[in-house]
Amino acid sequence: MPPEANGEEGFWPAGFSSGAVDASIRYGRNDLMILLGDVPASTAAVFTTNLCCAAPVIVSRNHLEKTSGRMRAVVCNSGNANAATGEKGMNDARAMAEAVASDFGLKPDEVVVASTGVIGQLLPMEKVIGGISSLPLVLQRESCLDAAGAIMTTDTFPKFFTLDVELSAGKCRLSGIAKGSGMISPDMATMLAFMTTDAKISSDLLKRALEHANRNSFNAITVDGDTSTNDMALVMASGFGLEILPESEDFVLFCDALEALATFLAKLIVIDGEGATKLVGITVEGAASQRDAELAARTIAQSSLVKTAIHGEDANWGRIIAAAGRSGAVFNQEELELHFNGLCILKPSFIADFSEEEAAAIMSEKAYDITLRLGNGPGRATIWTCDLSKEYVEINGSYRS
Amino acid sequence: MPPEANGEEGFWPAGFSSGAVDASIRYGRNDLMILLGDVPASTAAVFTTNLCCAAPVIVSRNHLEKTSGRMRAVVCNSGNANAATGEKGMNDARAMAEAVASDFGLKPDEVVVASTGVIGQLLPMEKVIGGISSLPLVLQRESCLDAAGAIMTTDTFPKFFTLDVELSAGKCRLSGIAKGSGMISPDMATMLAFMTTDAKISSDLLKRALEHANRNSFNAITVDGDTSTNDMALVMASGFGLEILPESEDFVLFCDALEALATFLAKLIVIDGEGATKLVGITVEGAASQRDAELAARTIAQSSLVKTAIHGEDANWGRIIAAAGRSGAVFNQEELELHFNGLCILKPSFIADFSEEEAAAIMSEKAYDITLRLGNGPGRATIWTCDLSKEYVEINGSYRS
Repeated sequence: MPPEANGEEGFWPAGFSSGAVDASIRYGRNDLMILLGDVPASTAAVFTTNLCCAAPVIVSRNHLEKTSGRMRAVVCNSGNANAATGEKGMNDARAMAEAVASDFGLKPDEVVVASTGVIGQLLPMEKVIGGISSLPLVLQRESCLDAAGAIMTTDTFPKFFTLDVELSAGKCRLSGIAKGSGMISPDMATMLAFMTTDAKISSDLLKRALEHANRNSFNAITVDGDTSTNDMALVMASGFGLEILPESEDFVLFCDALEALATFLAKLIVIDGEGATKLVGITVEGAASQRDAELAARTIAQSSLVKTAIHGEDANWGRIIAAAGRSGAVFNQEELELHFNGLCILKPSFIADFSEEEAAAIMSEKAYDITLRLGNGPGRATIWTCDLSKEYVEINGSYRS
Repeated sequence: MPPEANGEEGFWPAGFSSGAVDASIRYGRNDLMILLGDVPASTAAVFTTNLCCAAPVIVSRNHLEKTSGRMRAVVCNSGNANAATGEKGMNDARAMAEAVASDFGLKPDEVVVASTGVIGQLLPMEKVIGGISSLPLVLQRESCLDAAGAIMTTDTFPKFFTLDVELSAGKCRLSGIAKGSGMISPDMATMLAFMTTDAKISSDLLKRALEHANRNSFNAITVDGDTSTNDMALVMASGFGLEILPESEDFVLFCDALEALATFLAKLIVIDGEGATKLVGITVEGAASQRDAELAARTIAQSSLVKTAIHGEDANWGRIIAAAGRSGAVFNQEELELHFNGLCILKPSFIADFSEEEAAAIMSEKAYDITLRLGNGPGRATIWTCDLSKEYVEINGSYRS
């Protein structure tokens, strides 16, 4: 997919620096990075709901609790997920935090640990600790590209974006990096997103902003429906910039900006999904409830039959309504209405007199929207998905190593 | 897949006959069949839970209620699902029942109507009615192969089985036919199963037996997780044979026999799933509850990552436990235990010291079992699934017609 989809720029806000090195964990390129705050930063994070969550997820969640969301650094390796590694894996994740703490003069609890890669293998700790010790030498403030590159697994391009939002008293910067969607390849676990801002905002308020942003971005994408063991979306605020108070207009602006950043990164993840050639927004509206809208949109977005039809550029609307019909959402099938971008595919009472040519033209595009109206309820939700291609089977059907 | 998987024989029990003709609906081979009872037969059926259920499903459910489960015939066409066809589709389904009633001297309410094929197209009623009028000429009692062939869509072989069960007073015969799993190809809807017995059994008792059999057979298979709009599993009892009373030992034997018949047909459906080359039984045991076991087994069985690993013959156990972890089933990941047939892949505390060669040997087989133990609870469930191959994408990613 075209790197043009990336943000033009990838700059950290004031108060952050990053560095990356090749610790020779798996790829023979940078695979270890640190994101460092000059001071303890208000930090909020959401983690995978997978019961088989990885050791770094458990350790990081614990550290965030201990510091009440005041963190100094994120250390992340790619090539090995440190998932399904038992007690040894827990000790290794803690050891990564301790190594960062001693090399950078922090408290271990101030360090967020993240890993992404193969499940069920122990980290090569000598290499990891060695890599961490050389991170201080490569710290820089200018760009987030080094960090974005080091967290990639089978991603085909680094994912980053920077945006400035105009608040009442001036500009506030938000910048973020992300990698790979879901469990996107053999034994590769994880979607990771690390976002930063110079805003002065409490951890609690930041947590509210992140939960708002996450719901309609990272929680609204799917590649193969397989929630990974290592998912983590995190945002750090240095406080070097403007202050954001609860219930303020600025907080609303900040939430929208964080959601825009998260949504941009989330879409990059889908665009770079395994074997993906299309980015399709599945919107369900007119549902009896928000829950119904999400159920139907997610079921359509994850249907293998819908995803193969998207790949085949076939306006196969029967599969879309059939997926909605099994989703658990409640509706009257006679009221269903379906649009591809502006083109009406299906009118109520199953009247489908559309031009196959026009439909094919829309589906031949790299990105388009499918909108299904269930009725006249208030529920509305959008899920971004990609097509299911032979390449997906090729990549995931081939041997691990 | 090898027709050897079929039953050696396909004979109707006493009191049933069948016939099939080519009504030129789509394929240029037999595509319309009737299953006829000599007398009103105790009949029980379960239907798709898809909200977008097809017209014949609605009509048949209604007929079964009106007659309190005393039916004379099943008429079924392939090539067109009569789904998402609105009021016209409802009238067409009723017209099929009326045509059968007048040609065979029955009441329209005594006729079950089924259709399978393309969604969203109106039936060519002239051809269908013409075909029905010639069904009386081809009725025969010997074999169920004609009916099994006529209900196929993209099935690669007819699916049927006959078994005799020894009851207290002698033999009872059960015989059934089935077709295609889930929504198995472009716009093709439906799993259908029509079973018969000579037993003398009430509709209510037969309903209980069917619900028992269905739970562990047709409701325990998946090809692509897409519940179709036309699914129907039905059983008719002519009463020409032995009587089966409630709470009797014979009823237990009958239920087990019906489950065996349904399970055999269900496995044939998975074996013949689109692009499928493997039949894998996913068993989850030691779950806190039956619901947890089913949740975990179904999630593993439907995971694209697990299904591609099965296709790639890769003992990729991380994907299996990751799928269990996101299933909603509750367990402690340290207690997980995984077996492929007899081979232990994973011991508690994530100890995975197995022979990749032995694992590969098992996975190279056409059929094998994967058993995941979650803990020490009573919950246990098995779901049969197949692999996800490029052929699946090829078939479903190509254009409808």
